[in-house]
Amino acid sequence: MICEILSVGTEILLGEIANTDAQMISQGLSEHGINVFYHTVCGDNPQRLKDAVAIARKRADLIITTGGLGPTCDDLTKETLAQAFGLKIVPFEDQIAKLMAKMSGLNMTPNNLKQAHLPEGCTVLENDWGTAPGCAFEAEGCTVIMLPGPPRECKPMFRERALPYLSSKFGGVIYSTYLRFYGIGESALEDKLSFLMEGGNPSVAPYAKEGECEVRVTARGKTEEDARALCVPMVEKIREIVGEYIYGQDVSSLEEVVVKTLKEKGLTIACAESCTGGLICKRLTDIPGSSACVLGGFVTYTNEMKIKQLGVSADTLEKYGAVSQQTALEMARGVRTATGADIAVGITGIAGPDGGSEEKPVGTVWVAVVSDKDERVSLAPVRRKWSDRSYTRHTSASYALSQVLKIID
Amino acid sequence: MICEILSVGTEILLGEIANTDAQMISQGLSEHGINVFYHTVCGDNPQRLKDAVAIARKRADLIITTGGLGPTCDDLTKETLAQAFGLKIVPFEDQIAKLMAKMSGLNMTPNNLKQAHLPEGCTVLENDWGTAPGCAFEAEGCTVIMLPGPPRECKPMFRERALPYLSSKFGGVIYSTYLRFYGIGESALEDKLSFLMEGGNPSVAPYAKEGECEVRVTARGKTEEDARALCVPMVEKIREIVGEYIYGQDVSSLEEVVVKTLKEKGLTIACAESCTGGLICKRLTDIPGSSACVLGGFVTYTNEMKIKQLGVSADTLEKYGAVSQQTALEMARGVRTATGADIAVGITGIAGPDGGSEEKPVGTVWVAVVSDKDERVSLAPVRRKWSDRSYTRHTSASYALSQVLKIID
Repeated sequence: MICEILSVGTEILLGEIANTDAQMISQGLSEHGINVFYHTVCGDNPQRLKDAVAIARKRADLIITTGGLGPTCDDLTKETLAQAFGLKIVPFEDQIAKLMAKMSGLNMTPNNLKQAHLPEGCTVLENDWGTAPGCAFEAEGCTVIMLPGPPRECKPMFRERALPYLSSKFGGVIYSTYLRFYGIGESALEDKLSFLMEGGNPSVAPYAKEGECEVRVTARGKTEEDARALCVPMVEKIREIVGEYIYGQDVSSLEEVVVKTLKEKGLTIACAESCTGGLICKRLTDIPGSSACVLGGFVTYTNEMKIKQLGVSADTLEKYGAVSQQTALEMARGVRTATGADIAVGITGIAGPDGGSEEKPVGTVWVAVVSDKDERVSLAPVRRKWSDRSYTRHTSASYALSQVLKIID
Repeated sequence: MICEILSVGTEILLGEIANTDAQMISQGLSEHGINVFYHTVCGDNPQRLKDAVAIARKRADLIITTGGLGPTCDDLTKETLAQAFGLKIVPFEDQIAKLMAKMSGLNMTPNNLKQAHLPEGCTVLENDWGTAPGCAFEAEGCTVIMLPGPPRECKPMFRERALPYLSSKFGGVIYSTYLRFYGIGESALEDKLSFLMEGGNPSVAPYAKEGECEVRVTARGKTEEDARALCVPMVEKIREIVGEYIYGQDVSSLEEVVVKTLKEKGLTIACAESCTGGLICKRLTDIPGSSACVLGGFVTYTNEMKIKQLGVSADTLEKYGAVSQQTALEMARGVRTATGADIAVGITGIAGPDGGSEEKPVGTVWVAVVSDKDERVSLAPVRRKWSDRSYTRHTSASYALSQVLKIID
């Protein structure tokens, strides 16, 4: 089965967004052994979309479109694809009812209704993450799947609607498991694992994430049980080689593992943040159920707040500066005392672009993590050479979370 | 001039990386008034690349390729493009010399030399950021530009080599201006502005952002001044119709405008966050230079912290609950008192997925904003029906920022 991903959206051609939908879908299809031979992006233009569809159907037997399902007059994916395959667009009564329910209380304009009009006879892909449903049909030897464009809709729609729709065609079952790494770079990881990456069943592939790495192990089997069983010894092998850097299997982030571990151990956490400005607390509370272990925290952007709210000594600030291991440690101790948390984090640094000096360049970030038994303070390994504000804040927050995991263990 | 960007790389089709080169080039071309009608991605496969080139040259008169210029046997962009346009690949002596100089001290294998072989008669685009030079040629009515794939080479090669090469062909200048909206949905906005969106010069296009909208006004003129002047009356017209929802022109986010406005007025801000868990403070401190107006804040996830740190009364919490307008208001007052900030935000709600009740369903978020002159508290307009935790937190934080703008005005 050969796939072409056809993304519809002038905003991609104008460079306003990257085509991350195509990346996400490509990754998912490649895990399931479906070859993607082309990505095509075209704008919200009926003729050019029609031309692109004519080309795609000649060179692929699966066309997945993203975008152009919304209520505006630019949204013409369904009309164009249906026409190309000789299908009518008709109102789906149950979808109209669902749309009205979703929009109840909101101002529903006539063009909103367009979202409930779909190709005749298609399989509706229910959208629980937005208003526009997707759809799938087979016609003239080609399978067509249409997904909405916004990534936070496209991703679950692909994972939970398109993949199950396709699963009957896979021939066997694919199972993937993901190992998450912190503290090792992608090339070092690939170097150590390259002898396992030569293909076969299961297959092993590394991915670089922002400041982290992930390794995917994928196996194909007759049943999911078979496929899972094939992955087990491979995961064991990887753990033997680089296990010290693995912080979780089939988890989405460091914060997820921190929250899970704290809850398991019945521990609480609080943060005192300067340069990250609330990012660590934000990431911890991204996790549903985090209220069981996250007490809260302080964002102390000023010296006054560090002194008044956290009890950092004015002497320390004067002698060592706000960006110093001493201040980070006093911040962590201070928030622990103020909140009564079991574990506390203190973080202070220079996120940039301004504020750096020769002694303390942009990217200098001190991280302290304290518990009743232990106190650790260290410099976050920010790669200063090519860091920007967002990268510095993200990677130093990640480092703080990795230090929390260490102190809990 | 119509452009197609042809990206060559199996790693994009496997979803290992997003096609950020195409985004960067699209953005640069659109600024210069060159229309990009298609992006195509194909793998490191000679036949499929050849087919893609045959399609591209029919529908574009400028083809920009990225990737496939390196030394490995997968790198076949130059060979394929040259062949398609009837050109030979020949060694360029000066490029061989430069390559030897760049590689001196490194292990130079014979295939490294391939990088100095280029289409006969082409203009070499020197690569000061890597080893493989790019090139450009015109043949059979088509302009072809080839750039290396790694983004840190592709970007400067495009900006400093390809754009100057193209500049003689631009024929006019494009200017775009962007209006940012809060408090109106994309369909309602389009409904009101549809009569302006029928094409022409300037053109008007709406975009949905997460919980916000953007309208782009683009004009083409002989000079940038001409193009700018064409946009002015259109922007005025839009302001007359939906001006009440516009929070900024040519700005990137609500937080950028909040920080800018606070700095202009010499005001400071602090936040007391419950359900957003630090997100508002994080977004404000995303902005470089925010330390001039952001004092910091409190993340009070527990009732104890709301009482102890913010002075919320235990009576209020018991009588109205932690998620109530009364608590939001006392949180805002509390953080204002504790920090001495001019403006303070209090936010408390149910981000979900758990914790909702019939009376207070998931998505119920109270936002209070206080200054010395005014106190406002209101329910954030979260679209509860299809919200998830991340959406609820993001949109209620955006609402809080929009309320800050209102209280400053």
